[in-house]
Amino acid sequence: MKAIYGILLVALSACTSKNGVVVFQSDFGVKDGAVSAMKGVATEVDPGLKLYDLTHEIPAYNIWEAAYRLQQTAPYWPAGTVFVSVVDPGVGTGRKSVVAKTRTGQYFVTPDNGTLTLIAESIGIESVREIDEELNRRKDSRKSYTFHGRDVYAYTGARLAAGVISFEEVGPLLGDSVVRIPYQKPVLKGDTLAGNIPVLDIQYGNIWTNINDSIFNKLQLSPDKKVQAIITFRDSVVFNRPVPVVSTFGAVPEGQPLAYLNSLMNFSLALNMRSFADSFHISSGPEWKVKIVPVK
Amino acid sequence: MKAIYGILLVALSACTSKNGVVVFQSDFGVKDGAVSAMKGVATEVDPGLKLYDLTHEIPAYNIWEAAYRLQQTAPYWPAGTVFVSVVDPGVGTGRKSVVAKTRTGQYFVTPDNGTLTLIAESIGIESVREIDEELNRRKDSRKSYTFHGRDVYAYTGARLAAGVISFEEVGPLLGDSVVRIPYQKPVLKGDTLAGNIPVLDIQYGNIWTNINDSIFNKLQLSPDKKVQAIITFRDSVVFNRPVPVVSTFGAVPEGQPLAYLNSLMNFSLALNMRSFADSFHISSGPEWKVKIVPVK
Amino acid sequence: MKAIYGILLVALSACTSKNGVVVFQSDFGVKDGAVSAMKGVATEVDPGLKLYDLTHEIPAYNIWEAAYRLQQTAPYWPAGTVFVSVVDPGVGTGRKSVVAKTRTGQYFVTPDNGTLTLIAESIGIESVREIDEELNRRKDSRKSYTFHGRDVYAYTGARLAAGVISFEEVGPLLGDSVVRIPYQKPVLKGDTLAGNIPVLDIQYGNIWTNINDSIFNKLQLSPDKKVQAIITFRDSVVFNRPVPVVSTFGAVPEGQPLAYLNSLMNFSLALNMRSFADSFHISSGPEWKVKIVPVK
Repeated sequence: MKAIYGILLVALSACTSKNGVVVFQSDFGVKDGAVSAMKGVATEVDPGLKLYDLTHEIPAYNIWEAAYRLQQTAPYWPAGTVFVSVVDPGVGTGRKSVVAKTRTGQYFVTPDNGTLTLIAESIGIESVREIDEELNRRKDSRKSYTFHGRDVYAYTGARLAAGVISFEEVGPLLGDSVVRIPYQKPVLKGDTLAGNIPVLDIQYGNIWTNINDSIFNKLQLSPDKKVQAIITFRDSVVFNRPVPVVSTFGAVPEGQPLAYLNSLMNFSLALNMRSFADSFHISSGPEWKVKIVPVK
Repeated sequence: MKAIYGILLVALSACTSKNGVVVFQSDFGVKDGAVSAMKGVATEVDPGLKLYDLTHEIPAYNIWEAAYRLQQTAPYWPAGTVFVSVVDPGVGTGRKSVVAKTRTGQYFVTPDNGTLTLIAESIGIESVREIDEELNRRKDSRKSYTFHGRDVYAYTGARLAAGVISFEEVGPLLGDSVVRIPYQKPVLKGDTLAGNIPVLDIQYGNIWTNINDSIFNKLQLSPDKKVQAIITFRDSVVFNRPVPVVSTFGAVPEGQPLAYLNSLMNFSLALNMRSFADSFHISSGPEWKVKIVPVK
Repeated sequence: MKAIYGILLVALSACTSKNGVVVFQSDFGVKDGAVSAMKGVATEVDPGLKLYDLTHEIPAYNIWEAAYRLQQTAPYWPAGTVFVSVVDPGVGTGRKSVVAKTRTGQYFVTPDNGTLTLIAESIGIESVREIDEELNRRKDSRKSYTFHGRDVYAYTGARLAAGVISFEEVGPLLGDSVVRIPYQKPVLKGDTLAGNIPVLDIQYGNIWTNINDSIFNKLQLSPDKKVQAIITFRDSVVFNRPVPVVSTFGAVPEGQPLAYLNSLMNFSLALNMRSFADSFHISSGPEWKVKIVPVK
């Protein structure tokens, strides 16, 4: 009987231990073998892992967008999920390789270069450990000094997700703080809301701001109200128009502008069935700002 | 012993219950976190699900192409597979959110906006249920009113694939009919075959028509015969040439046109080693027609 | 008790038999349903398989790049992994459909058209079998003669990965040789190293050569040494400059050129934070050559 229990335990743990989920993000694209090599390394650690992608189309070296995509996506994955994010202009410079554990029980394996800025603010980080590369580096990879994504991050993330190592075995505790990119936060002054455009809703060309519903609702707009939306780039005005605030794109004719709260409950601008970004030449980043004033 | 059987049943069902496969399609692209958020929601329902993609590169709002890709792909997936298709220009308008069960035992979770036009014709729908959003909507998502793809469709598809809900628990029965997009079907008049170009074989630039092998074979071409292929856009002739019907691209010199039956057994046009679509500026959709006449 | 053991064995084999991993590569792109149809066929063979992608963005018909990506990636996947590579300009011509088993216990399902050139050289092939399409072809696919990727390659790869067939059951043994594309290998003459540019590091625009570290180290450069890097296209000089050899991109100012050993330990050229390929109009293929001479 003992043997049966032993076999059963093996069978059960092979099937169910942890959630065994790793979600990869990078600026590698998917035209070459880099992402596949990372998944191969993870599969070698444990072929039972579930390996998914956030995106590999982060613009090259764009840490800010990497930070944004993690914040946008992580809340929808269960506790125990391990994110491996490799957007790393500073390979070989002083940035540390870390694993951060959030208050919600998710893990983020990444260079500590600002990538965790928004996760730290929104979800909250419980503790950060520096990866001890003596222990947590793929064997036979010592000669190779340029692909940390595969040899350290994917390897460590997979071992953590598979339960081969515990969080404590990642390496020494650094505390609970991470490198943060400074950025302008949303503010309400009088009846004027200011914020910035962290990213575009690329596929549709919608403009997403960092102004969330709780601050937006302080404007106490009546249901049929319009707002004046002013978009500036380096303080030059690019767009300046009254726009209706609606709860469905179909509420305005095709091609007309509208304001709405997106799926993250942030103030956003769009054209019904068209690209707002293309039509008005809007992009995203710290130099793009939005002001919103209720139309009297 | 009972305990062992109990554990065994858990082990077995964790490993094998249903096929647990969800296939996602959308017009979201993969540059942001939307697709990943859908997979996160599905993983939260059951981390044992197998989550695959059909494509997320459907042109924005192009319901016709969404319908085509489902028809093209579904026959190759096993019974029990759950497809989640989110191409939805009418978010917030009157279209219903449904799950359709086909005669072959597959499930399609989608807005009922024409996306199921071709599946209904080719595979056949057994019954359609409207998603009861009171029961089948992700918790804590009531404030968010724009991302049905994640909060209703991915969530419901995952619960169905994981066996958390039965098809009956999706919501009320609507019958067996879905919204259908009208389109021109292939016809044979005298010795002239007419049809349309539903999609291009994008990667290679080949022209795929909706003229299938059974109607094409009525022309009773001899093996070395050519056909006159006439392609029109809004009744203007764009291409008009005799083309050999071959069974392999290598049968004509590089750069030369050829006609063949594609992997769906539909009449198609190509250039050997070149893009037919680019070379002759051909696109797809209801305004593009093809006529075929045997060369005497 | 026997019954329990039987059930246990079923449970265990469902969970653990082989590694059950299939990695797909093609030039199909992911805008249509071709890749998904291949995965559907594999899922129908066994829904427990783990299906991953190398890339589907191989330039159309580019066998050389297909060969390169396999060589780049395969070493990072475990033994038992089945690769299905479908880049096949010669559908219907004389090339054979094969499965090659490497000395490392991986399997490659592909047309034998040069795709295995670099795997044969670097990893080494133990034996090659021709796929017997009478036995290893999806049922009901006899009418369809153009999509070998789905009906033969994906189907055979999945059956092999799932243990439905053994390697011997693929078909008759062909020996241990495959079709190889001739290409220029790296050579050292005097103090001049010559090689070619097999591929670019597309996402970042870095130049990767086929000059590996062991031949490069014969130059016995001192740590602060520069090399003269000469890039030619059809014997016309495109780039000719002294470049420092560094171990991290950050060692040179932004926008400046540098040489380094990439993650494959091959000699490479880059601009710090810029695209070398775009800046100097460099591409890849057999017509692109690199010469390296130590600067005195």
